[in-house]
Amino acid sequence: MTFSQRHLLGIEHLAPAEITAILDLADDYAALNRRADKHGDALRGLTQINMFFENSTRTQASFELAGKRLGADVMNMSMQTSSVKKGETLIDTAMTLNAMHPDLLVVRHPSSGAVDLLAQKVNCAVLNAGDGRHEHPTQALLDALTIRRAKGRLHRLNVAICGDIAHSRVARSNILLLNRMESRIRLIGPPTLMPAGVADLGCEVYGDMAEGLKDVDVVMMLRLQKERMDGGFIPSEREYYHRYGLDAEKLALAKPDAIVMHPGPMNRGVEIDGTLADDINRSVIQDQVEMGVAVRMAAMDLLARNLRDRRAA
Amino acid sequence: MTFSQRHLLGIEHLAPAEITAILDLADDYAALNRRADKHGDALRGLTQINMFFENSTRTQASFELAGKRLGADVMNMSMQTSSVKKGETLIDTAMTLNAMHPDLLVVRHPSSGAVDLLAQKVNCAVLNAGDGRHEHPTQALLDALTIRRAKGRLHRLNVAICGDIAHSRVARSNILLLNRMESRIRLIGPPTLMPAGVADLGCEVYGDMAEGLKDVDVVMMLRLQKERMDGGFIPSEREYYHRYGLDAEKLALAKPDAIVMHPGPMNRGVEIDGTLADDINRSVIQDQVEMGVAVRMAAMDLLARNLRDRRAA
Amino acid sequence: MTFSQRHLLGIEHLAPAEITAILDLADDYAALNRRADKHGDALRGLTQINMFFENSTRTQASFELAGKRLGADVMNMSMQTSSVKKGETLIDTAMTLNAMHPDLLVVRHPSSGAVDLLAQKVNCAVLNAGDGRHEHPTQALLDALTIRRAKGRLHRLNVAICGDIAHSRVARSNILLLNRMESRIRLIGPPTLMPAGVADLGCEVYGDMAEGLKDVDVVMMLRLQKERMDGGFIPSEREYYHRYGLDAEKLALAKPDAIVMHPGPMNRGVEIDGTLADDINRSVIQDQVEMGVAVRMAAMDLLARNLRDRRAA
Repeated sequence: MTFSQRHLLGIEHLAPAEITAILDLADDYAALNRRADKHGDALRGLTQINMFFENSTRTQASFELAGKRLGADVMNMSMQTSSVKKGETLIDTAMTLNAMHPDLLVVRHPSSGAVDLLAQKVNCAVLNAGDGRHEHPTQALLDALTIRRAKGRLHRLNVAICGDIAHSRVARSNILLLNRMESRIRLIGPPTLMPAGVADLGCEVYGDMAEGLKDVDVVMMLRLQKERMDGGFIPSEREYYHRYGLDAEKLALAKPDAIVMHPGPMNRGVEIDGTLADDINRSVIQDQVEMGVAVRMAAMDLLARNLRDRRAA
Repeated sequence: MTFSQRHLLGIEHLAPAEITAILDLADDYAALNRRADKHGDALRGLTQINMFFENSTRTQASFELAGKRLGADVMNMSMQTSSVKKGETLIDTAMTLNAMHPDLLVVRHPSSGAVDLLAQKVNCAVLNAGDGRHEHPTQALLDALTIRRAKGRLHRLNVAICGDIAHSRVARSNILLLNRMESRIRLIGPPTLMPAGVADLGCEVYGDMAEGLKDVDVVMMLRLQKERMDGGFIPSEREYYHRYGLDAEKLALAKPDAIVMHPGPMNRGVEIDGTLADDINRSVIQDQVEMGVAVRMAAMDLLARNLRDRRAA
Repeated sequence: MTFSQRHLLGIEHLAPAEITAILDLADDYAALNRRADKHGDALRGLTQINMFFENSTRTQASFELAGKRLGADVMNMSMQTSSVKKGETLIDTAMTLNAMHPDLLVVRHPSSGAVDLLAQKVNCAVLNAGDGRHEHPTQALLDALTIRRAKGRLHRLNVAICGDIAHSRVARSNILLLNRMESRIRLIGPPTLMPAGVADLGCEVYGDMAEGLKDVDVVMMLRLQKERMDGGFIPSEREYYHRYGLDAEKLALAKPDAIVMHPGPMNRGVEIDGTLADDINRSVIQDQVEMGVAVRMAAMDLLARNLRDRRAA
């Protein structure tokens, strides 16, 4: 079988054929989601638990809808108000949940590596919904599917990733995926927002939007965490927008059919011009959200198949 | 078809035949809800999202149960902890949700008109679960169903609406509905709690309960928002209860078979005497809650039928 | 029929045969929960509402999974943010929910007796998920099932319950159950954490772990509420652990095959040594969590059968 993973912890662990398997199945689910009757039964009889140690209304909603539409019994655990507060460790929490026999465990955690650690302790399939600055694999997969649907392919594209690369698990997972699928990546942003070791990532690095955006096929903007501004990483919102915010003028340097992406939620007028974000001829931001549900359905379906095979063996 | 609405944004948009269509179907669902097996499939395969920008345990619970009992995949979005806090606009939030392909979107929002605005941006059916001081259509429909079941009709009844009319979307939607169904409405309350332009509402206005309650068939009490007291609208709870709170003595002025209503949650001893609220010979307050689930099932079922017809067309 | 209860309010009301009926059915559900397809339909068509007036992520999750796996429409009410805050009384809240026609109502409340009071006001089956210092019947049942699976029986066992007996509804329900099933119970803890009237409970009382643990079959540790330390009940965590915390040395006094239990969440290094808690040869703490889901499925199934019989009659 093409997709032989037990967990979805990061793009790091996926072979190109596995990425393609997820995207192909997600295309089918994207069609299902547009139908009036959008309920399937690929996860029927299975229990999905969403454990979010960090708030994320969008991502949690996307996983929740994905599971419900495939017939899983879905439970959200609000970890902010949980026994974690009573001093229980992450591992105890994981072991407790594991004892309730979930089949799919979707985890977001503020610490890099926490989800990998947790996956070693449980019997079920674990999906990483974002861990610290490490990985956010379903975001990279939904971005890839959006690009593939807009451009017809994933290889030999010029993709610019712009903004706060250093603190972004979205950037990290996208770099891994696009590298693996043989696209060329440019990272654009102020030096203070570039990660240590950026030279080893296999990407071109630019400090200037005008240079970096030249002839790219895809412009991927990142969310600017407001707290970076207090930290001295950037001078001000106004200055940041002037230099690194995407507007029509800067976009004109890219290819004429270049698409604009943003993982959301957007700060309009900080990372991106509002009018441009809403321009359905250029912006695929809504498509990203739509593909998010489809990609999560596909990933959970494939993991559940492997889980059933393992149990039957 | 009798019911041709795409959304349920307000009583304002409903023809009398449409109101009757909802109430008739809700009668059937009220019967279903009393059965041991109370699960139907009118919404099977559809996705319902509840977006409450204002807390309301009761109304959200009522919509949630209504959707689940009809087989929808139901998701609650807690908008207080959502990306709205990260600076995302209402429209961005709506567009994001829309991209996840919900079929039914139930929205409560503190600003009048916000739900209408949102409905213009999405493809699905939107139900207004209360917006600012504007409308709360399902509350008026459940009140109407409760009255119709108790009195056998909606026309030619004398209905008193008492208390804080000015700030109440419940009052506003009830006035619209009862006017449309040819009941006669009296508004009773202190002048400080009457809305501007009250003379144009097509109701009789009273400052005195003794006068206003004379010979009415229905006494509809409104919830008093405690924050009105700080605002100088009314002197004190005690004084308010003395003048405008409903007790057995004041109720004796109404018709002998007059029913007592309250949208809940009640402030016992402020708007209404506790013993009277519990008197099942006069109070239909529990019936209102029961009819709430039935009316929401009916409204979502009718909207879903139109949605399917539109998609099939 | 063996199990003739309308509600599950406390172990106090259960005959030994009823306890056995729940445990026998829970054994079956424990097997179901280990299967890949773990969805049944014993509660299909029914509505389960979880009302938690006190946070408890674990217990609520356990009841939620139990209901969803048996096909119920499950709704969680977050009572911390509900109309209870708007001044509504517990009884009004109960009556409101009752009007929505739930079939199963799962309630946790900080006041002893609140759940019993509520059960008198509603038509549906009520399950006590913990009320004040009174009872926590499903915890005692899952503990009993865990013991029975480990030891093969419930009678003629020596069971030590250790720690804060005074404030523990877990202890109270376990004492009632184990007494009824003819086990011998020892209570071990500092005199400040023993309940008033401890002499009348039918248990042996020890102030010293070395004495109390001698030759027991089961060591049941209780959670220490950190707030007890401020109250002067115990001197310090360190001192408490030294005298009453369970470690390998103290456990060596019990029978060689004695099992170790804890209702969770654990304070490692306060009530129990972390290594011991994780020792799968002695600790059945994960089994307790697993049996928790199974016991709740069994209890709700049995109550639902009685509810259907009552309605059919």
